[in-house]
Amino acid sequence: MVKLAFGSVGDSFSATSIKSYLAEFIATLLFVFAGVGSAIAYGKLTSDAALDPAGLVAVAHALALFVGVSIAANISGGHLNPAVTFGLAIGGNITILTGIFYWVAQLLGASVACLLLKFVTGGKAVPGADLPPGRIRHWAVPTHGVAAGLSEIQGVVFEIIITFALVYTVYATAADPKKGSLGTIAPIAIGFIVGANILAAGPFSGGSMNPARSFGPAVAAGDFSGNWVYWVGPLIGGGLAGLVYGDVFIASNSEERVERSYERV
Amino acid sequence: MVKLAFGSVGDSFSATSIKSYLAEFIATLLFVFAGVGSAIAYGKLTSDAALDPAGLVAVAHALALFVGVSIAANISGGHLNPAVTFGLAIGGNITILTGIFYWVAQLLGASVACLLLKFVTGGKAVPGADLPPGRIRHWAVPTHGVAAGLSEIQGVVFEIIITFALVYTVYATAADPKKGSLGTIAPIAIGFIVGANILAAGPFSGGSMNPARSFGPAVAAGDFSGNWVYWVGPLIGGGLAGLVYGDVFIASNSEERVERSYERV
Amino acid sequence: MVKLAFGSVGDSFSATSIKSYLAEFIATLLFVFAGVGSAIAYGKLTSDAALDPAGLVAVAHALALFVGVSIAANISGGHLNPAVTFGLAIGGNITILTGIFYWVAQLLGASVACLLLKFVTGGKAVPGADLPPGRIRHWAVPTHGVAAGLSEIQGVVFEIIITFALVYTVYATAADPKKGSLGTIAPIAIGFIVGANILAAGPFSGGSMNPARSFGPAVAAGDFSGNWVYWVGPLIGGGLAGLVYGDVFIASNSEERVERSYERV
Amino acid sequence: MVKLAFGSVGDSFSATSIKSYLAEFIATLLFVFAGVGSAIAYGKLTSDAALDPAGLVAVAHALALFVGVSIAANISGGHLNPAVTFGLAIGGNITILTGIFYWVAQLLGASVACLLLKFVTGGKAVPGADLPPGRIRHWAVPTHGVAAGLSEIQGVVFEIIITFALVYTVYATAADPKKGSLGTIAPIAIGFIVGANILAAGPFSGGSMNPARSFGPAVAAGDFSGNWVYWVGPLIGGGLAGLVYGDVFIASNSEERVERSYERV
Repeated sequence: MVKLAFGSVGDSFSATSIKSYLAEFIATLLFVFAGVGSAIAYGKLTSDAALDPAGLVAVAHALALFVGVSIAANISGGHLNPAVTFGLAIGGNITILTGIFYWVAQLLGASVACLLLKFVTGGKAVPGADLPPGRIRHWAVPTHGVAAGLSEIQGVVFEIIITFALVYTVYATAADPKKGSLGTIAPIAIGFIVGANILAAGPFSGGSMNPARSFGPAVAAGDFSGNWVYWVGPLIGGGLAGLVYGDVFIASNSEERVERSYERV
Repeated sequence: MVKLAFGSVGDSFSATSIKSYLAEFIATLLFVFAGVGSAIAYGKLTSDAALDPAGLVAVAHALALFVGVSIAANISGGHLNPAVTFGLAIGGNITILTGIFYWVAQLLGASVACLLLKFVTGGKAVPGADLPPGRIRHWAVPTHGVAAGLSEIQGVVFEIIITFALVYTVYATAADPKKGSLGTIAPIAIGFIVGANILAAGPFSGGSMNPARSFGPAVAAGDFSGNWVYWVGPLIGGGLAGLVYGDVFIASNSEERVERSYERV
Repeated sequence: MVKLAFGSVGDSFSATSIKSYLAEFIATLLFVFAGVGSAIAYGKLTSDAALDPAGLVAVAHALALFVGVSIAANISGGHLNPAVTFGLAIGGNITILTGIFYWVAQLLGASVACLLLKFVTGGKAVPGADLPPGRIRHWAVPTHGVAAGLSEIQGVVFEIIITFALVYTVYATAADPKKGSLGTIAPIAIGFIVGANILAAGPFSGGSMNPARSFGPAVAAGDFSGNWVYWVGPLIGGGLAGLVYGDVFIASNSEERVERSYERV
Repeated sequence: MVKLAFGSVGDSFSATSIKSYLAEFIATLLFVFAGVGSAIAYGKLTSDAALDPAGLVAVAHALALFVGVSIAANISGGHLNPAVTFGLAIGGNITILTGIFYWVAQLLGASVACLLLKFVTGGKAVPGADLPPGRIRHWAVPTHGVAAGLSEIQGVVFEIIITFALVYTVYATAADPKKGSLGTIAPIAIGFIVGANILAAGPFSGGSMNPARSFGPAVAAGDFSGNWVYWVGPLIGGGLAGLVYGDVFIASNSEERVERSYERV
C-alpha cells in the first residue's frame, strides 16, 4: 500500500530541513567523489592491462557509502540516493516535497563531485610504458552502461533486483522502528550490500542502484545515453522494497509493538 | 545431547511464522543473488585469464551474507541456510516443523535467485578480445564441485569443518543468551567467517557451508551431480556445532546465568 | 567561524595531557608502520610486474587507521593526524598549545615508524627472477608525490577534498555531541573513509590526507621535495571541515540539544 | 612493572577454566584452519604465476581472527595466541598456571588445524596447464620463515613491533576497564590489526605475531627451522605491550577511575 505523505509546505523550508539538504549534498558529493574517483584511478592503473578493476571499485563504493550514510545519518537520515528517498516516501517516511529537495541535493552533490574529479585528474597526458609514443590519455569520467551483448531490459531488471536489496536493507536496519541494536551497524550494512551487488552486477548492468551516482558522471561527460536505465530500474526496485517491507513487516506489526519491548537478535 | 523440539503445529502457521518464512525467502534470495552473481561476474571478467577470482567472490559472499543475516535477524533470526536451521534445531532453538518451512523458504529463495541470474546475465554472446572469433559464451551459473584430484570424502570433511565454524559462530554471537554486546556485531561475524572459509576452501571443496547456496545453482544449471556433498558435509558440521556449543557452553551454564548479570568481553 | 581556544598553559602539561601525547605517538607510529610497510611490501612483491598494489595498500591504511584511532580514542581522542588536530582546533575542540604537542607526537611517531621500517626491510639484496643478475635492490621508503602529468595545484585540490571528507567524518561520528550510537562505529568510519579515498586518489595525488603520514617517509628517505603539498592541502581541507561542520551542524543546534534527548539513526 | 599473578591452583581446574581451555582450543583451531588454509589455497591458485597472494591471505587472517576472538570472547577472553596470553599475564590479567593451560590449548588447536588441512588438501596430484606434464604437486602446509636477504634479527624486530601493536590493541579495546563502547568492536579491531600487519610484514618476516600460528604448520610439515623467531619476537612484543599499556594507561589511572564514570570516545 502506497503511503505517500504530503505534510505542510513550511516543514520543507525549516532550518532543520535545510540543514538536511546540505547534509545530503555534502555526503553524496563525498561518496560519489570516492566511488567514481576509484573507477577513474583503476582505469589509469590498469589501462590496456588484463586486470579488471571491478573488485576494488566495489570496495571503494562499499567503504565510501558506509561513511557517507554515517556522516549524514543524524541530520538527514543518510539517503544519498534518489531511489532510497523514493522507497522511503512510498512507505510514508518522508514527505513528497522534502523528498524532492533531497533529490535536488543528491543530484547536485553527485554532479559537483564529478566536475571536481574532472578537474583534479585531467591535464597533461602521461605517456607511459603502456601507451604507444605520442598517444595522449585523458582520464574520462566513466558513465554507467549496460554491457555489450545484454539488452537494456536485462539491465533494468538487474538494477531492480539489486536496488530492492539496498532499500530493503535500509528499511530493515535503519527505518524499522523495531530495528534494535541493528541500528548501530546499519550504515555498514547499507554500504556493504552496495559493495556485494557491484561485485555481481558490475560487469553486466554496471551496478548503480542510484540515479544520482549515474547522473553525476553523465553530467561531467556530457553523455546521457542509456541514463534512463538507472532511473527506471532503481526507482522500481526501491519502490517495491518500500511496499513489501512497509506493508508486510512494519505496518502489520504495529499493534504487536506495544506488547513487547524486548529485542530479538 | 540432541534437544529436538516439536512444538504445537499451530505455531508454525501463525502470522509471525509466515512472515519469518517470507523474510528467509527474501534474504536468502538476495544473498545468493549477490554471491552467485559475483561468481558469474568474475567468470566473465577473467575468462581465459590467469587471474583467479576466488578472492573477490569470497568478499562478495562475506558482505552479502552479513547483510542478509542483518535484514532477516529481527524477523526470522536470519538463518539463510538449512545447515544453520538444522544446527539450531539440534540445540532446541527452533521446532522441527517450523524448521522444515525454513528449509523450503531457503531452497526456494536460492533457486529463484539463480533463475533470475540466468535471465539477467544470459543472452547474446559477446565475442571479446579473449575469445576466438565466432566463439560464443553463455555465462553459466556455476555449481559447486570438489576440485579435481580430491576425493569426495575430502570434500565432505572440508565442508564439515567449515560449517562447524559457521554454526558455532551463530551460536556464540547470536543464539547464546549470554552473548552480551557481541550480539551487535553478530551479523558481521557470521558473514565474515563465511568469507574467510571460502578463501581457504574455495579451490578445494568450493566452500559452500550451505545446502541452499549449492542447491540454487544446481536447479538453474539442471546439474545435481555431486550435490549430495553439500548436504552431508554442512548438515554434519552444523549438527556437531549445535551439540558442542549447546551442551558445553549453553546447557551447563544455565544455573550460573541467574547469579551473574554482568557482561564479560 | 573560527573558534580557537587557548586554555591555561598548565593544562597542556598535566599527567592526562602527557599520556595523550604518548598515546598519539604510539598510535601514529603503529598506523604509519603498517601503512608505509604495506607500500614497501607491495613494492617488493610486484617489482617490475604489471600488477599495481594500490588496492591492498589502501586496505592496509584503512585497517591500520581504524585500529590506531581505536587504541588512542579513550586517551587522546585518536587524531593520529595534524590535519585532524587542526580541524578540531578550528572548531574549538582542543586548545592551541595542546594541539601543538599533538603535532609533535604525531610527527615523531611517523618518523620513528619509517626509520624502523628502514631497518627491518633493508639489508642484503635479493636477486630474484625479476631482477637482472647482479642488480641490487634496497626497498626504499616510498614518499608521497603528485603523479606525473598532474600539476601540484591539482594535487593540493585533491588533498583538500579528501581531507575535508576525513575531518568531516571525524566531526560527524566522533566529535558531534549528538552522535549517538554512531560513536560505536566511529573508528571504523574514520579508517574506511581513508581507505576509500586512497582508492580514488592513490594514483593521482597519492592520497595522504595526513601531513604526518607524508612527513615520516620524507624523514627516512631524506627527501622533502613536494612535501609542502601534503601540508597545505590537508590543513586547508581539515580546517574547512571544522568550519562547516562546527558552524552549521554543531553550533546552531546547541539550543535544540536541550529539548530533545532521543537518538535519531 | 611486571605484575605476574599466581592464584590458587584449584582455579585453573574449575569447570569454568576447563571450558575456557576448550573454547581456546576450538577458536584457535578454526582461526588457524582458515588462515593457513587460505595460504595453501592461494599457493594452489597462483602456482608458478606472478600474482602474489599475500593480500588475500591477510584478509583471510583478519576475518578469521575477528571471528575467532568473537566466538571465544565470552568464555575464555578470546586470546588464540600465546603472545596475547603472555602479554595479559605480564599485566596481571591471567594467572600463570591458567596461562600455561591456555598455551597448551592454543598449540594443540593450531596443530590439529594444520593436520586436518594436510588431510583435506592432500592426495592425488592435479597436473594443470601451469605444470609441466608428469609433474606432481602436493599442497604443502607453508611454514613461516624470514625472507631471503633479511637477517633473523630483522625478522625478530619486525615481529616485536607488530606483536606490540596487536597486544596493545587487545589492551586498549578489550582489557582496559575504561574501554567503554570500544568493547563492542574490539574483536574487529583485533582481527584487523593482524590483517594490516600481515600486509606490511608478509613478504619480510612472514607476519606471524602468534607462536601458535607458526607452530601448527611446523608440526604438520615436520620442519621447525627458524621457528624460534616466532616465539622470541612475539613474546617480547606482547610482553612490552603489557608493560607499557598496563603501567602507563591502566595502573596510573586507577584513582581517576572512581571520580569519573562518563565514557570518552
